[in-house]
Amino acid sequence: MVALELVNQPNKRRQASEQVSELTTNRLSVYLRCLNELDAAGVQAISSQALAEQFHLNAAQIRKDLAYFGEFGVRGVGYYVKDLRRHLRQILGLDRHLRVVIMGAGNLGLALADYPGFRQEGFEIAALFDVANEKIGHESRGGVPIYDIKDLKRLARRDRFDIAVIAVPAPHAQPVVDTVVEAGIKAVLNFSPGTLKVPAEVKLKSVDLTVSLESLSFYLAQGEESG
Amino acid sequence: MVALELVNQPNKRRQASEQVSELTTNRLSVYLRCLNELDAAGVQAISSQALAEQFHLNAAQIRKDLAYFGEFGVRGVGYYVKDLRRHLRQILGLDRHLRVVIMGAGNLGLALADYPGFRQEGFEIAALFDVANEKIGHESRGGVPIYDIKDLKRLARRDRFDIAVIAVPAPHAQPVVDTVVEAGIKAVLNFSPGTLKVPAEVKLKSVDLTVSLESLSFYLAQGEESG
Repeated sequence: MVALELVNQPNKRRQASEQVSELTTNRLSVYLRCLNELDAAGVQAISSQALAEQFHLNAAQIRKDLAYFGEFGVRGVGYYVKDLRRHLRQILGLDRHLRVVIMGAGNLGLALADYPGFRQEGFEIAALFDVANEKIGHESRGGVPIYDIKDLKRLARRDRFDIAVIAVPAPHAQPVVDTVVEAGIKAVLNFSPGTLKVPAEVKLKSVDLTVSLESLSFYLAQGEESG
Repeated sequence: MVALELVNQPNKRRQASEQVSELTTNRLSVYLRCLNELDAAGVQAISSQALAEQFHLNAAQIRKDLAYFGEFGVRGVGYYVKDLRRHLRQILGLDRHLRVVIMGAGNLGLALADYPGFRQEGFEIAALFDVANEKIGHESRGGVPIYDIKDLKRLARRDRFDIAVIAVPAPHAQPVVDTVVEAGIKAVLNFSPGTLKVPAEVKLKSVDLTVSLESLSFYLAQGEESG
């Protein structure tokens, strides 16, 4: 999957993030996932070469990506797993507690609310929002409460919401995003097809699930041509 | 979102696909999405520059990516939208009819089964598979039938299944993938966290939904540092 929009920087002062592409942060996320696995397996240190081999990554790319943020490697040792994991979490802003709301309590919204990966990295799925009376007042299987979308602004004043995930059908996506922006939320992850408009100070990232299937389709088509 | 594993080529004869990275096919998918919108809006031709501006892409990258597959641009015109769209669909293997099965009829599986983007690009969601008796025999809201996972092998012999999507909880993912491989399916899209093992002749692509949230987290962290 790929975001349709790359990082757009509304603030000229953000020197660091201006030079770091979304592809780099995506790779840092992948490295963090690998380090989580290594840490869980009790591995204490690993070289960039071994990290690359074990997880099918590129060792030179790993060294380059990490060097940009500081001196994390130790000569003759490689990287200390726990240390590098802590640094990566810091770089990605995961050392803070980020509160996420999900707009739309359909199958996709409910699946995302209970997606185990989010919690593991410290995201708190604070609430689901919907318009359907039969859903409002209930909760997801994992215990995320479902509120009336009309209450978003009020709840956003009381509790801090950092990120809104858009999981409503395409025709409702733009009005829902407008409501999210009015509520003062500055980062939006969109699962709805089609492009959405947000003001410059809001960061929008769109996820298109079709892209992954098409990459497999390309692979299958190549196989048939040569097979 | 980013795949944890890049394209691995089990077949040395696949010269074309060996030189095309997954990042390139992801970009082709994004171009196709843009051309779909332009076509729907009645646009007949567009320059790489205008395409880049309208969709926040890189014009030089567009020209480079497309030039790899042939001469699609026309001097003084740019690209004919319908033509380029047809070519891209061909390159991505979308001119064939691909049949997809989804393993797991929980919230995620049901959301994917009815995801409108898949159908739009010509993927047929042929079936859902689950182990829960109360689900088997029913269908998704969009009409995709839910079968017993025990029947996968038998049904795969009768109907052709091209791609299997894994949407089961992490502890069940590996045995379910093994069943998919035994049924002769050669391409797997995995939404379950953690790494999965498949034989070399099967193409596995993993989607990690956490990566997108982390990219937004990075953006928010940068904003706080400089703000």
